[in-house]
Amino acid sequence: MVDGVEREGGKRLGEFEIIARYFAPLATDAASLALRDDAAVLRPPESHEIVLSCDTIVEGVHFLKDDPPDSIGHKALAVNLSDLAAKGARPYVYLLALTLPAEPSPSWLEAFASGLQALQNEAGIALAGGDTTHAPGPLSITITALGLVPQGHAVLRRGAKRGDRLYVTGTIGDAYLGLRALTEPALARDWGFSDEDLAHVIERYRRPRPHSELAVILRNFAQGAIDVSDGLAGDVGKLASVCHVGAVIEAERVPLSRPAEKAVRHEPCLLAALLNAGDDYEIVAAVPGASGPAFEAEAKGKGVPVTQIGRLESPEAGLLVLGPDGHALKLDSGGYAHF
Amino acid sequence: MVDGVEREGGKRLGEFEIIARYFAPLATDAASLALRDDAAVLRPPESHEIVLSCDTIVEGVHFLKDDPPDSIGHKALAVNLSDLAAKGARPYVYLLALTLPAEPSPSWLEAFASGLQALQNEAGIALAGGDTTHAPGPLSITITALGLVPQGHAVLRRGAKRGDRLYVTGTIGDAYLGLRALTEPALARDWGFSDEDLAHVIERYRRPRPHSELAVILRNFAQGAIDVSDGLAGDVGKLASVCHVGAVIEAERVPLSRPAEKAVRHEPCLLAALLNAGDDYEIVAAVPGASGPAFEAEAKGKGVPVTQIGRLESPEAGLLVLGPDGHALKLDSGGYAHF
Repeated sequence: MVDGVEREGGKRLGEFEIIARYFAPLATDAASLALRDDAAVLRPPESHEIVLSCDTIVEGVHFLKDDPPDSIGHKALAVNLSDLAAKGARPYVYLLALTLPAEPSPSWLEAFASGLQALQNEAGIALAGGDTTHAPGPLSITITALGLVPQGHAVLRRGAKRGDRLYVTGTIGDAYLGLRALTEPALARDWGFSDEDLAHVIERYRRPRPHSELAVILRNFAQGAIDVSDGLAGDVGKLASVCHVGAVIEAERVPLSRPAEKAVRHEPCLLAALLNAGDDYEIVAAVPGASGPAFEAEAKGKGVPVTQIGRLESPEAGLLVLGPDGHALKLDSGGYAHF
Repeated sequence: MVDGVEREGGKRLGEFEIIARYFAPLATDAASLALRDDAAVLRPPESHEIVLSCDTIVEGVHFLKDDPPDSIGHKALAVNLSDLAAKGARPYVYLLALTLPAEPSPSWLEAFASGLQALQNEAGIALAGGDTTHAPGPLSITITALGLVPQGHAVLRRGAKRGDRLYVTGTIGDAYLGLRALTEPALARDWGFSDEDLAHVIERYRRPRPHSELAVILRNFAQGAIDVSDGLAGDVGKLASVCHVGAVIEAERVPLSRPAEKAVRHEPCLLAALLNAGDDYEIVAAVPGASGPAFEAEAKGKGVPVTQIGRLESPEAGLLVLGPDGHALKLDSGGYAHF
């Protein structure tokens, strides 16, 4: 479909030129038909299921206007790869729907595509198709990613059980601190941040690292998993709710980076915000107690730190976040968490 | 992912409430996991390939602000079903990424979902997942649709050959007249339109009818096919260009509806515009000469009128549109057609 502006026949870089120049090099899978067709044709390997993820990121909502364009390309793909990883799926192909507010400069498009390229090479996924549109309003990117799992082995949210240990990968809350520091630069000083601390949290906000390397281990050990995109507490609440169980998170066990620890030391009430903030793109896994040590060892073997932060309980427990003093921590749920 | 506004914790209808109330009823395939997971899990039937289409429609560009919300839901799905049909694919599942500019009213959401529901029931496709986001800017909808074809039987653009007959389904240019009449109401009188004529062309603009019922026939007869979304001439040009052949369209043979014929009688130079306008969502098929009569008969049997409008030629012909007088018709290409 060609949009109304292009129909007027201006001199701008046309949709087909943009595709040929910047996106065709990303279409390394034969399924893409070199992006010269309006559709892609996939022949999925036998005995596999396809996992589908679809996430939109919009300027001013999920990324900032001044974020480097390669980080915007990275993030658009990363948030989808994170969903695939949580399902135990290996990345396969993706479709890119790009809505551009104005004439993008060649350098912007090149950097944006390079962010996609770097992450897709790392993840082993290829562009298979998509759509480019010009429209007023903020830049918006919707990616639909397809992953593969052996038949019947997708890790669903709903398989987790009472008694399971709750693990989380990496560290929590850095992206939140990065976003806050980008929008209120004075905060970095209040939090006692060094330049490295600041760079670390900004990088976590701009370039989330999906844990694709954990997919197989999740299939082998996790009864349920979810990627942490809407805040640790809320996402654990969703997992528990779908499985009809309760959950306890011990706030003191939640892994924080050094910068996050520093910020919490300077401003203790930040802890609740970190547990409730979004954009972590870590993975929470529910693992039966007996498998815990093996899960930890295998994840460590893949270079992914995992930390037990709590356990699943009977439904009456609801979602309980215990503070360092052993009392329930009050979190502002923002309306989306089930507690 | 929960957007920044929701994080503030307002009283608006939350993402999860919108999904549960309006979209879960559309998720009639088990793959959707009842939309309670962040991903869908599909087990495609054996010996089939998956055809992927992805199209975005944006308010003010692909539909008008005042279009009935059910027609917006219809159109978002229809433009993707049209792509699947042109590939000879049967509809399977789709993902919906909805970017809402403001608090949608329950009645808007209900009507929007009913437009999706009616068309998905007709087409035999189900919602499998997606994303709902709030962001400033116009309403935007990206649908990724998956279709199925028996292995090796997708109808690609690139298979068409010199000598093939070019057929088109239905009639051309109605949607263009509908859009013009909606934006410049006086035109309907200039064109001598009755109320029925006006209603017909507006309906064609708002509710394109994808030709899903033609998919199997295209697989059996067409060497190449494309859906007409960017204008008949331009899309035939794309088909020819991908196949490294030329094409001749005889303007007099291009099927017009009665209202379109009326408009051209009143304003003869409209003919070129109709051949060049978008949003028809008819299908152009390249069929070997000997198979022409059988193709016509089978399409007619399915209730789809098809008309031969020209043929594929040697590459040197380029794209030639012959006017009623036998001379080449000059079309304003709008920058996207390959001529």
